[in-house]
Amino acid sequence: MAPAAQPSLPSPVADLRIDRARLIDRIEALGQVGAIDGGGVCRLALTDDDRAGRDLVVGWMQDLAMDVVIDAVGNVIATWGGDRSLAPVMCGSHIDTVRTGGKYDGNYGVLAGLEVVETLASTGYSPRRPIAVAFFTDEEGARYHPDMLGSLVYAGGMSAEAALDLRGIDGTRLGDELVRIGYAGPVPCPGVVPHRYFEVHIEQGPILEAEGVTIGAVTSVQGIHWEEITIVGRSSHAGTTPMAMRRDAALAAAMLTVRVRDLVSEIGGAQVGTVGAIDVHPNLVNVVAARATLTVDLRNTDRDELARAVERLGVACDEIADSESVEITRKVTADFDPVEFDAAMIDLVESTAAGLGHTVRRMPSGAGHDAQMLARVSPAAMIFVPSVDGLSHNVAEFTEPSDLEAGANVLLHVMLHEASTSKTISSQMTPHPADGAA
Amino acid sequence: MAPAAQPSLPSPVADLRIDRARLIDRIEALGQVGAIDGGGVCRLALTDDDRAGRDLVVGWMQDLAMDVVIDAVGNVIATWGGDRSLAPVMCGSHIDTVRTGGKYDGNYGVLAGLEVVETLASTGYSPRRPIAVAFFTDEEGARYHPDMLGSLVYAGGMSAEAALDLRGIDGTRLGDELVRIGYAGPVPCPGVVPHRYFEVHIEQGPILEAEGVTIGAVTSVQGIHWEEITIVGRSSHAGTTPMAMRRDAALAAAMLTVRVRDLVSEIGGAQVGTVGAIDVHPNLVNVVAARATLTVDLRNTDRDELARAVERLGVACDEIADSESVEITRKVTADFDPVEFDAAMIDLVESTAAGLGHTVRRMPSGAGHDAQMLARVSPAAMIFVPSVDGLSHNVAEFTEPSDLEAGANVLLHVMLHEASTSKTISSQMTPHPADGAA
Repeated sequence: MAPAAQPSLPSPVADLRIDRARLIDRIEALGQVGAIDGGGVCRLALTDDDRAGRDLVVGWMQDLAMDVVIDAVGNVIATWGGDRSLAPVMCGSHIDTVRTGGKYDGNYGVLAGLEVVETLASTGYSPRRPIAVAFFTDEEGARYHPDMLGSLVYAGGMSAEAALDLRGIDGTRLGDELVRIGYAGPVPCPGVVPHRYFEVHIEQGPILEAEGVTIGAVTSVQGIHWEEITIVGRSSHAGTTPMAMRRDAALAAAMLTVRVRDLVSEIGGAQVGTVGAIDVHPNLVNVVAARATLTVDLRNTDRDELARAVERLGVACDEIADSESVEITRKVTADFDPVEFDAAMIDLVESTAAGLGHTVRRMPSGAGHDAQMLARVSPAAMIFVPSVDGLSHNVAEFTEPSDLEAGANVLLHVMLHEASTSKTISSQMTPHPADGAA
Repeated sequence: MAPAAQPSLPSPVADLRIDRARLIDRIEALGQVGAIDGGGVCRLALTDDDRAGRDLVVGWMQDLAMDVVIDAVGNVIATWGGDRSLAPVMCGSHIDTVRTGGKYDGNYGVLAGLEVVETLASTGYSPRRPIAVAFFTDEEGARYHPDMLGSLVYAGGMSAEAALDLRGIDGTRLGDELVRIGYAGPVPCPGVVPHRYFEVHIEQGPILEAEGVTIGAVTSVQGIHWEEITIVGRSSHAGTTPMAMRRDAALAAAMLTVRVRDLVSEIGGAQVGTVGAIDVHPNLVNVVAARATLTVDLRNTDRDELARAVERLGVACDEIADSESVEITRKVTADFDPVEFDAAMIDLVESTAAGLGHTVRRMPSGAGHDAQMLARVSPAAMIFVPSVDGLSHNVAEFTEPSDLEAGANVLLHVMLHEASTSKTISSQMTPHPADGAA
């Protein structure tokens, strides 16, 4: 049952499979670092726990005799085998998590990459091109905005200097925290352009599970727009201040949160919107709030619809500022257009999954991923596996071991295909013609 | 120009006036303890700053040769002069503040009391009854709910044991903090019932200033109802979770906040309502919130209308729990009926203010005050002075020195009147017949 897409490979290579137990063991071991109640993980980017997680994964990379380099924003790229004069076939993801995250989001893609290497190494077979496994800094953006920061800088979308100067939600400077945890590396950004970039990831949504399909061949990633909105009112006494004289920042924040839900419903389709963070000052029962900050996360696969949502958010801010006599300031902290993945690579993922005997469907991604940043400079594609109950960014995040195994085997064979059979291209940093990103 | 209400006092006593400069100096000195930007003060109850403020005021009481006692919940009562077999004429207020408070709220009433004592002491005149000046623990309720806690316990409305076991917004136990700052006193609660209780206070609202009136003769205090509401949803990914599958605790909190504003508008009249505190978990830009807590503060001078507001809050919680698929739990942290002050004492405040040459009007209080707790056991009344721009619980809180002086002189002469001319009543703890409180 050799995959149809790899007729030129010798049968022993085509029959290769990753080791499910070893993959699960690594996921569980990494999930112990920063573990929280309920089976979840908290490893916000560049914290002590993130360092401990990085150290563990780098140790595994070194055990596999991979060449590990760290770049100026803390991205880690480990390379194995092949002709080093050729651009590598790269896979990767991230190992930072949100505050109440699971052990699969990101981590799975990195550890599946290690399975690819260890599985190949065990055969004594070295592909023509090097295999690279990367993990990128601050993909979640939960501590430093924007998200997908490390891969954005890797792909040349932001200078390393600008990234190092970012301030986190806790007031820390990214560059200082990077030095503190020992991951300010010597390799400059933008980084080496891979020949191909693959990323296997949990779906983080309900579609594959609902349809009983094992593998998603990801066609695109939705656009994303983040804002931090600050509302300034006036603190006053909750008992003595007539309602008509109030300038209530907490009420204005609440009104805006409800308006985000309303505008998302009005636009419909693929539009989603979330107010995930609200902070009120002085935050006391008997004081009308002087100040509130909130975050808005808007996403859509359609660029024009997303722009419409952002425009309506602005209208809502203006109307609430007017009706509540508050000042509203908007700051855009992330803004990425929707991305289409490489057509030939989507075909390869689909045919490889089918060749391995898995059910497969094409689908867009609801979440942002490092792959969309790599797609700016390299042909890229993603492989999804099901999320139980569609849950992610939740301690109960879970994917069945058989599905984790299936996704890693698809990754193994698409990487093997690209590392063994494709023509050489330059590793210079030049935009890929198919790049649709801003 | 002796006040009409005090014909029996010798002229030198009737002509007594407090020392404005000394009053302002003490207000400014106390305002330096826990001072924050903008001229405000942060001395949350039983913090290190509260201890420093207490130590300063107790030192001034001792300088005036007052007998200072501390009770089981940290209330401080200082007594001066008179026949100690008679119940004292007491005045008081509080010296704790909200997180972004001013230097007048509460503090003014306590320091005006010291002016009464120092002014009398300077004449060598001792009234028939003792003069007592009190400050009560945690009036603001900003750290430990309910508010007016110390005076509530003093008046027998809650046991000292229950109060000591309260948990603060920072998780601390009130009794532990009281011991830590050295204000767990030996005197039991309920405390000695005063013959009369007066409290002079800034209005904290806009009415006196708007009407150009110097003195408010306070007729009543509005009822107050506080809740802490917890909303449990489900954390999930802000990009991949379809809107229809969300259980968004932050959105539900926002909807409830808007509903509080709506129900207050519907009830109208004297009804006010505030959501002053909102906390969201995990509070990240790209995670649908799993949990939110918020506070609701509802007040009305009419008991039935206030009950209607509470009932509508319950309806709103039920409807939002249903529509958003979240669990909503309500916890009542304060619930006090409206209070009417003593008719004869209101008359006395009004006539004394007029006799001193001040404009005066009767008015209800929009805020809760320790006087409403003392009114459970003793005839009580309050004196208001104007707040510039109606601001309080704000660092910009301000009252003109001439108005502070006027209010303190009214306090001096109403206390002198009651301490010199009234009949003895028992100091046993018995409910006052006029007590309308729950």
